[in-house]
Amino acid sequence: MKTLTSTGEIEFIEAIRRIARSGRQRGVALGIGDDAACVRVGADVVVTVDAAVEGVHFRPGWIGPRALGCRTFRAAVSDLSAMGAEPRFLLLALTLRADSRREDSLEFVRGLVAEAAAAGVSLVGGNVSAGPVFSATLTVIGRRGPRLLRRDGARPRDTIYVTGPLGGAAAGISLLERGEERGTLQNLYRRPPLRITAGRALARLAGIGAVIDVSDGLVQDLSHVCAASRTSARLDVDAVPLSAALRRFAIEHPRSRVERAARDFVLSGGDDYELIFTVRPGRARAAAIVRALARAGAGAHAIGRIVERGSALVRDDADGSPLSGGYEHWKTSRRT
Amino acid sequence: MKTLTSTGEIEFIEAIRRIARSGRQRGVALGIGDDAACVRVGADVVVTVDAAVEGVHFRPGWIGPRALGCRTFRAAVSDLSAMGAEPRFLLLALTLRADSRREDSLEFVRGLVAEAAAAGVSLVGGNVSAGPVFSATLTVIGRRGPRLLRRDGARPRDTIYVTGPLGGAAAGISLLERGEERGTLQNLYRRPPLRITAGRALARLAGIGAVIDVSDGLVQDLSHVCAASRTSARLDVDAVPLSAALRRFAIEHPRSRVERAARDFVLSGGDDYELIFTVRPGRARAAAIVRALARAGAGAHAIGRIVERGSALVRDDADGSPLSGGYEHWKTSRRT
Repeated sequence: MKTLTSTGEIEFIEAIRRIARSGRQRGVALGIGDDAACVRVGADVVVTVDAAVEGVHFRPGWIGPRALGCRTFRAAVSDLSAMGAEPRFLLLALTLRADSRREDSLEFVRGLVAEAAAAGVSLVGGNVSAGPVFSATLTVIGRRGPRLLRRDGARPRDTIYVTGPLGGAAAGISLLERGEERGTLQNLYRRPPLRITAGRALARLAGIGAVIDVSDGLVQDLSHVCAASRTSARLDVDAVPLSAALRRFAIEHPRSRVERAARDFVLSGGDDYELIFTVRPGRARAAAIVRALARAGAGAHAIGRIVERGSALVRDDADGSPLSGGYEHWKTSRRT
Repeated sequence: MKTLTSTGEIEFIEAIRRIARSGRQRGVALGIGDDAACVRVGADVVVTVDAAVEGVHFRPGWIGPRALGCRTFRAAVSDLSAMGAEPRFLLLALTLRADSRREDSLEFVRGLVAEAAAAGVSLVGGNVSAGPVFSATLTVIGRRGPRLLRRDGARPRDTIYVTGPLGGAAAGISLLERGEERGTLQNLYRRPPLRITAGRALARLAGIGAVIDVSDGLVQDLSHVCAASRTSARLDVDAVPLSAALRRFAIEHPRSRVERAARDFVLSGGDDYELIFTVRPGRARAAAIVRALARAGAGAHAIGRIVERGSALVRDDADGSPLSGGYEHWKTSRRT
């Protein structure tokens, strides 16, 4: 078995360079192999960074290295989708243990590059370092859309929409934690949706208020929108779409416990990487948005409304009770 | 003592946002607080990523949090200096232990932002995550200079130059490892030089071949230039400048051991963050370059020459012996 100790950093970077070259898209003036990369983006550059840390964002038994590369790309690029930007370039900072299998690490890179190339994105640079656990930090660089979709654009009377079902990834993690490796829910965690086209469609449409992606949980991410927009939200919890697999899961498990669990997964599960967005009032506008998102391969499900700022950021519209919860680093023992 | 567990992620990010705002420079269309940042760079964007991992790049007793922020910026931006680019924007991905002192983490950010602001660079985004050790991964985004200074531009008959003394940071680390915290050499490790202006000057000058920064050690980094340029190099080891502190250190220590150690520090120590560059033949050209770098606050010391590709990438010009060594992750037990 080849480890990184036996091959060393320089040979390993050369192997990554070859993989990156195989997935190279347009606009790369200088890729991996120099002190920095040079890329052609456009005047306004949209940029984000996201990390996947072993033991925090995933555990080794949950996902194979190639699938982890795919998931890491999809999770990181979701931030650009939520801005309505077009992702174009990627930097990868890896920390790896000395006893890491070289082939596993390269499989991770292959999964990442294949997924990125399919989305028109090139891996152009990065960094490798020794470290106590595997971590992959991705910088995603993209081109601004016709509008920058921000968190602070919501207004009272906006309708809140979500592009697809929630809660499946969190339910998948709960099964993985019980040692159940196979299943549709587990795969929802492993392969979150790509909403690049949906985000870009939203940036071209009139009447869009705020946009955010669901990474830490519906209630928490919606709270960020409300805090930034100085509004509150009323959520129609029953209207939030569940995947068929999560509905089956809810039926197959004892009723009382599962209704609670399914609701928790949906409201505060996170890792779904769907987009939440708000839309100004008007029926014709709503219909146009549903059609545009359908063309982008995404849904548009109304799940609540923005209201004047109140004492709670998000409330259940059915009984007015305040909603909270979601993932926050250091405040919870487990990352979902 | 406030830890991250007691304050949580959201409050911590808000504190970082306030610090970043205090150091904000021009060109930031959207900074920290949304899913991604939006910045105005120019058509050609130069970008790099660099990590500082506790136990690998530094140990807690070696450097205080504020100085670590300064050092991390200087080390990361060095890659852009070596491309002749103008650094403009910064993303910071932090992983922190739950029992980290909140105030230490913020001091790190303050050191980073103050240092970046002084260089005209804004912190515009990032990521925070729980993790087993402190690590800071910096993405530096900049504007391409009139020329992109690459590693593969060296040609036989070029003269090799360095912008300043080498070996001091590595000697400083060796003292820190012995528990000696105070001293000029230790401070050379803590506060590497900034070569942004020097790099930008090189990008405007005619006759520059290849450029790289010294991060892993003179011989290793020069080997990268030779490998990329398909050349070899002859190094005039005695011509490599030492700092006054390293010369004193060599005098104050037993002769035989120290001559060896000082030579090792100079040739393979790393962490100096000076630039190595090659210059096409011509006396008038050399004089113009020395003058331009002096205006940029940097030296220009001739330390060798590029030759046709031979069996070794780098040789000692005095006796023709091959030179090797330098830092490589996973191949050595310690990162200097």
